[in-house]
Amino acid sequence: MIEGPYLLFLGDAADPLAAKVAQGIRDWRPDAALGQYRMQGCNADMGLPDMTPAEAAAKGARTMVVGVANRGGVISPAWVEVLSQALEAGMDLASGLHNLLRDEPELVAVAMKTGRALHDVRVPPHRYPIATGRRRPGKRCLAVGTDCSVGKMYTALAMEREMRARGMKATFRATGQTGILITGGGVPLDAVVADFMAGSIEALSPANDADHWDLIEGQGSLFHASYSGVTLALIHGGQPDALVLCHEPTRTHMRGLPEYTLPSLEALRDLALDMARIVNPEVRVSGVSINTAGLDAGAAERLLRETEARLGLPTTDPFRHGAGRLVDALA
Amino acid sequence: MIEGPYLLFLGDAADPLAAKVAQGIRDWRPDAALGQYRMQGCNADMGLPDMTPAEAAAKGARTMVVGVANRGGVISPAWVEVLSQALEAGMDLASGLHNLLRDEPELVAVAMKTGRALHDVRVPPHRYPIATGRRRPGKRCLAVGTDCSVGKMYTALAMEREMRARGMKATFRATGQTGILITGGGVPLDAVVADFMAGSIEALSPANDADHWDLIEGQGSLFHASYSGVTLALIHGGQPDALVLCHEPTRTHMRGLPEYTLPSLEALRDLALDMARIVNPEVRVSGVSINTAGLDAGAAERLLRETEARLGLPTTDPFRHGAGRLVDALA
Repeated sequence: MIEGPYLLFLGDAADPLAAKVAQGIRDWRPDAALGQYRMQGCNADMGLPDMTPAEAAAKGARTMVVGVANRGGVISPAWVEVLSQALEAGMDLASGLHNLLRDEPELVAVAMKTGRALHDVRVPPHRYPIATGRRRPGKRCLAVGTDCSVGKMYTALAMEREMRARGMKATFRATGQTGILITGGGVPLDAVVADFMAGSIEALSPANDADHWDLIEGQGSLFHASYSGVTLALIHGGQPDALVLCHEPTRTHMRGLPEYTLPSLEALRDLALDMARIVNPEVRVSGVSINTAGLDAGAAERLLRETEARLGLPTTDPFRHGAGRLVDALA
Repeated sequence: MIEGPYLLFLGDAADPLAAKVAQGIRDWRPDAALGQYRMQGCNADMGLPDMTPAEAAAKGARTMVVGVANRGGVISPAWVEVLSQALEAGMDLASGLHNLLRDEPELVAVAMKTGRALHDVRVPPHRYPIATGRRRPGKRCLAVGTDCSVGKMYTALAMEREMRARGMKATFRATGQTGILITGGGVPLDAVVADFMAGSIEALSPANDADHWDLIEGQGSLFHASYSGVTLALIHGGQPDALVLCHEPTRTHMRGLPEYTLPSLEALRDLALDMARIVNPEVRVSGVSINTAGLDAGAAERLLRETEARLGLPTTDPFRHGAGRLVDALA
């Protein structure tokens, strides 16, 4: 586990999008976002107090999180200096970059000297077991998508927040780098070795109280030729009781695959159910989450109503309208 | 690529089953099986000439293959001595054991000194790209199973042999340790990192002549909770034109999953087709391969006939009756 609260390192972010990890932490774990550190030329701002590593440490920050992705994922020499200061101030470091903290000799030396930890969340923290497929108590909800990057993480986080606000027992389970940095733990599923994918998800969402819900972050899509195997391991390891279908209506082809069009929500529903029933015959589709960011309010409203009527399932955009109806369907 | 011909190291195999990798090489690549090396107490015999490493090297052997699995996958000190002799004699070493040749300091030292290679086929030899899903010329046939270990490798190898005997262009593509040791190359799919699974299979079965068939070795099963993600990556990376359904009729539950019964061949057909059509709308199921080793000749014959009538597909046991009918269905 990565210890909070965090100082969010925004570095020299070229634009706000480059700092989307920091944005995710600020949006979803505001209590963990103590402050931000911006370098010369930084074009992102989380609206948090600007602090040096020493100031943040004095206020209780335990980890400086690299909340920015720069082109190529490299860790620049200018960064190393600030990251070293954070270690010297008594904080750990956490990063989801392709280039690893542990591959920077200077950071490794300072971490050794100061006894601090370097968390590279792209690297699985330990070996996972082979999945057993055994039924386990507790409820699990999994977001599945017509494509990659259609709002699966956002949907699960919004549902967790709503459930907790209602006093329900709920835990978001991160399966990707951003989700792990937001919550402080999880499984970087895309980096797990094939044989252990489903087992890692069983480990991530273990037996729990009968009325506890795990909201498992989805990955990829059963219809995405590059990543479908990851998605299926998530379905079979997660053993979901409920599936939420996620979709982005303006997408013209599968992400990164210009020759592939998106499946319909009906096709996703049918295939995901076929797959999930293998491990849980009682699984059902509980709702639809549509990312309407690309539509104006009227068009979004019409699409949601039309989809709800067509599929006979609660349909919402949790960002625009909250996750209440998706949670109603689980309760 | 692992260079042949081979000296098959049978070690101190407790029984013939422990030497099944050597058996596979002798059965499927007899031209590559130059000789065998057996230690005191070895209870396996491939019927090949017994040779010391020096004798084998003198006869042209290029690699000594560890053709035996011992309990725990360890490389015993008694083995290290013989393996070192093989390196000294100018041969490479190849092994599919969990414990790696490269983790044996003495072997590493001798390999460095002699300039020979240590092939650990459980470790992917290089990084693979992300799958593109793009259609590519050449034909591909994939064996899919109702369960793990139902004869998928055997079926693909038998089809390759039959096709070559008929003068067809055909290549078996290994995706598991035994298959890789049999053919000298391939992808150890179960050890590939999740994001690159489908890409590794695209790389393994690249664009080819329009009348060339890749016979891709299947892994796992879409219905196997532990490994289904691996199977789906194989389907989406392999982009098959033809699927052969493989089944073992005496299995009482899914391998390693006592709570799961096997799916019907019909269920496998439907789900595998649904999945394969995502990447190749023209895919078809071309035949059924049933491993009837557990049945007497009469029962086997009845089951094959009954299955063929039920599914309307050429159905055979390629071990008992050859792969001719499965190949007829592709031609």
